[in-house]
Amino acid sequence: MDLFKKIETDKGPLGQHSDRAHGYFTFPKLEGEIAPRMQFNGKTVLTWSLNNYLGLANHPEVRKADAEAAAKWGLAYPMGSRMMTGNTTLHEELERRLAKFVGKEDAFLLNYGYQGIMSAIDAILDRRDVVVYDSLSHACIIDGVRLHMGKRFVFPHNNVEALEKQLQRAMKIVEKTGGGILVITEGVFGMEGTQGKLKEIVALKEKYPFRLMVDDAHGFGAMGATGAGTGEEQGCQDGIDLYFATFAKSMAAIGAFVAADTPVIEYLKYNMRSQIFAKALPMPLVEGALKRLELLQTKPELREKLWTIVRALQSGLKDRGFNIGNTQSPVTPVFLQGGKDEATRMALDLRENYGIFCSIVAYPVVPKGVIMFRLIPTATHTLEDVEETLRAFEEVGKKLKAGAYKGAHENDLPVVPALYNT
Amino acid sequence: MDLFKKIETDKGPLGQHSDRAHGYFTFPKLEGEIAPRMQFNGKTVLTWSLNNYLGLANHPEVRKADAEAAAKWGLAYPMGSRMMTGNTTLHEELERRLAKFVGKEDAFLLNYGYQGIMSAIDAILDRRDVVVYDSLSHACIIDGVRLHMGKRFVFPHNNVEALEKQLQRAMKIVEKTGGGILVITEGVFGMEGTQGKLKEIVALKEKYPFRLMVDDAHGFGAMGATGAGTGEEQGCQDGIDLYFATFAKSMAAIGAFVAADTPVIEYLKYNMRSQIFAKALPMPLVEGALKRLELLQTKPELREKLWTIVRALQSGLKDRGFNIGNTQSPVTPVFLQGGKDEATRMALDLRENYGIFCSIVAYPVVPKGVIMFRLIPTATHTLEDVEETLRAFEEVGKKLKAGAYKGAHENDLPVVPALYNT
Repeated sequence: MDLFKKIETDKGPLGQHSDRAHGYFTFPKLEGEIAPRMQFNGKTVLTWSLNNYLGLANHPEVRKADAEAAAKWGLAYPMGSRMMTGNTTLHEELERRLAKFVGKEDAFLLNYGYQGIMSAIDAILDRRDVVVYDSLSHACIIDGVRLHMGKRFVFPHNNVEALEKQLQRAMKIVEKTGGGILVITEGVFGMEGTQGKLKEIVALKEKYPFRLMVDDAHGFGAMGATGAGTGEEQGCQDGIDLYFATFAKSMAAIGAFVAADTPVIEYLKYNMRSQIFAKALPMPLVEGALKRLELLQTKPELREKLWTIVRALQSGLKDRGFNIGNTQSPVTPVFLQGGKDEATRMALDLRENYGIFCSIVAYPVVPKGVIMFRLIPTATHTLEDVEETLRAFEEVGKKLKAGAYKGAHENDLPVVPALYNT
Repeated sequence: MDLFKKIETDKGPLGQHSDRAHGYFTFPKLEGEIAPRMQFNGKTVLTWSLNNYLGLANHPEVRKADAEAAAKWGLAYPMGSRMMTGNTTLHEELERRLAKFVGKEDAFLLNYGYQGIMSAIDAILDRRDVVVYDSLSHACIIDGVRLHMGKRFVFPHNNVEALEKQLQRAMKIVEKTGGGILVITEGVFGMEGTQGKLKEIVALKEKYPFRLMVDDAHGFGAMGATGAGTGEEQGCQDGIDLYFATFAKSMAAIGAFVAADTPVIEYLKYNMRSQIFAKALPMPLVEGALKRLELLQTKPELREKLWTIVRALQSGLKDRGFNIGNTQSPVTPVFLQGGKDEATRMALDLRENYGIFCSIVAYPVVPKGVIMFRLIPTATHTLEDVEETLRAFEEVGKKLKAGAYKGAHENDLPVVPALYNT
C-alpha cells in the first residue's frame, strides 16, 4: 500500500533494464558540437540520431543569432505567461512569419511542443466531441487525447478505410451529443518515416464534417517544395485545420507553434492551459527561431543537401538488400531479423567497432524477432559519411545473417530499450 | 456539428472579453530590461507582476553566464530527449547540486515545469492509486491529476481536517485495489500567498500511509533559512517525498526539477513521458541555472533584500487598512470590495495615472463583489518603490470607497479577465 512499493518490483518497460542500459543505450552522452562526428564514451562516432535535418543547429548564422540574442536579452526575458506579462512584439512577429510560411491566417507560438499540442487538443475538445487518431501518434498527442473526457477512437496507422469506419462511429455519437469530430495524424511519423495520408484524409471531409489536426514535427522544414511541411508536400495544406510543428527538429531549438484560421488561434490563445499558466518562450529562443526560419526559407540548398543525403542513404541501403520499410521522408528505418540479444550485440558492434551511432528499437515495440535501427540523415552529413555507413551496415548485416551475434553472456551486455515514439 | 462552431458562441472564460482586454489586461507587453521600472504602452510603470523574487533575471553574473553559455553552446545543444541523445555531464551536475541543496538524495532535471510535474504525477500513479490534492493547486497539477485513471479526491485549500477525511476515503479504496495514496499540495500558493500546511500534512503520515508531493514553484529560492524552500521554512523537508520546483520564478528562467530518494528519481527518469519523448533542456539554460543556483546559495543578501521589501509592502498595506488576506510569503494579495466595472476602472487608474502595474483578479475567480490585486515584491524593488505604491493604493482605495469608480460607459473599457492559478 506504499505508493512507492511498486517501484521495487516494476520499473517500467524502459526502466527494467536501466541498470545495464544506462549511459550507453539510454541517457548516452553525445559530446562536442552538434555534427555528424561527435564524441561518445571517449570515441568519435558518426551520428545518425539527431533530428537536425537542415543542419541549422550549428549553422554560423544561427550560432551568431543565438549568442547575440542571449547577450542582448538574457535567458529570463520575458517573465510570466504570454497572457499575463510575457508577451512581446517579437513573439507576435514570429507568429506572423510562421503563419505566412505555412499558409495559414494566424499562428500561436508555444512555450514547448509537448505541452503545447496537449493543451491545444485539450482546449479544442469538450466532452461532446469525438477524437479520432492514428495508432502511431506521438506520445504528446496520446497525452492530449488522454485528457479528453468524450469518446476517442483510434485507427491503425495510415489505414484510411479504418479511419472512415471510425468516422462513421463518431458521427453516430456526435449526432446524439451535438459535438464535433477532430481527426489527428502526423505529417511524418518519426519512427518509420511514413507520411500521414493527409490528402486522402482531407478528401474524407467531403463525406464527414470533421476538423483535421496534423503534427508535422518531422515534416516542417524538411518536406514540401519550400519546406513548409507535409501539407505542402501533398498539396493539401488548406485542408489541415490545425497545423502544428515543433522547433525541436529542423529548427534545432525548443518551442513550437500551431497555425490555423484567425478565430481558432484567438480561441487557442485564450484557452490553452499550458500557455495561459506557464512562462512564455524566452526571447533568445524567439530571436533564434526567427533566424532559423529565415535560413529555412532563404537557403533551399540546405533542404536540397538533406535530400541528396537521404536519397544516397536510402537507395544505398535498398541496393544492399536492406528492408527500409515504407519511409517517405528523411527518417530511415532499417528492419532486420533477429532476437533482442542479437540486436544488442549488433548495436554494440556498430558503435564500438564501426563508430556508427544510431537508435535501435527492439521487441516489444517491433514484433518479436525484428530489429529496427533508425537513421536520421541531415544536411551536414556527407556522401562519404553515407558510404562509410553503408559499408558498416553491409558488414554487420552479413554477420547477423551468419549468426555471429548469437551467443551466451547476454547478461553482461547493455540492453536495448523498447523505446518508441520520439 | 462543426468542431469549430462553438468558438463562435463560447470563447471561454478568458476569451469572452478578449476583444477589449487584449493588449492591456491580457497579452500586455512589458518592455525593457526586467526591473521594477519597465515600459507598458509607451509609459514607464512600476511593475509588481514578475516572479523575479531574487532579482536574478538581470543580475550581472546571470546575464554574463547566459550570454557566455549561449555563445559557447548555441541554443540547440543537446538535441533529443535526455534518454535518447540529450544527456550531458552538466545536466547531471545540475541535478546533483539541486538535490543536495534541497536535501534530497537525487533530482531529475525537467525540460519544462508544466509538462514536467504533469508527467511526474502521471508516472507515479497507476489506476489502483488514489490522489488527494488541494483545491487551489496550480493548473499543471490539475492537468496531471486529470491524466489519472483512478480515484481523485480534492480537499478545500489548506483544510487539513478535510484532507484527513479524504485520506480515510482513500484508505478504503486502496484497501480494495492494493494501490497507494499520493497527496499533492504547494509550498506557496501563487495567488493568495498562503503556505501549504506541509508540517501538518507530514504529521498525518503517522496515521495514513501516503506519499507527499509538493510543488514549491513560488517557495524555492524565496522561503527557508537558505532559500531551499517551504519544506525548509517549515522544518519538514524530510517528510516531502517528491519535491518539485520550477525555474520560472526565483531562478528567472525555464526548466524545473523534481527531487526525491534515488530509486524514485531513477523510476521517474525512465517513466516520465514528457521527458522520454521530448527534447532535453538546452545547455545555456542548464549553465544559466547552475549560475543562478550558485548565486541563490552564496548571496543570502538577495533573499534578505526581498524580505525587507516584502515586510515593508505588506505591513504598509495593513497599516493603511488594506486586507491582504493570509499571505505567508512574498506573494501579496490586496482584497477590496467592488464590482467588476470598478475593478477595471481602478486598475486603469493605477496603471494610467499612478504608473502601477500589477495583476487584477475579479469575479468569478474571487467572489462577486470582491476585487483582488496581486503584487509580487522582488529584491530589485526599493523602499521608495514601496512608498510610492502605498501612496497610490491609499488614494485609489479612497476613491473606490467614495464610489469614484462606479459609472456608465463600461463597455468602452478593457475588461479584467478572470485569470487564476499563475
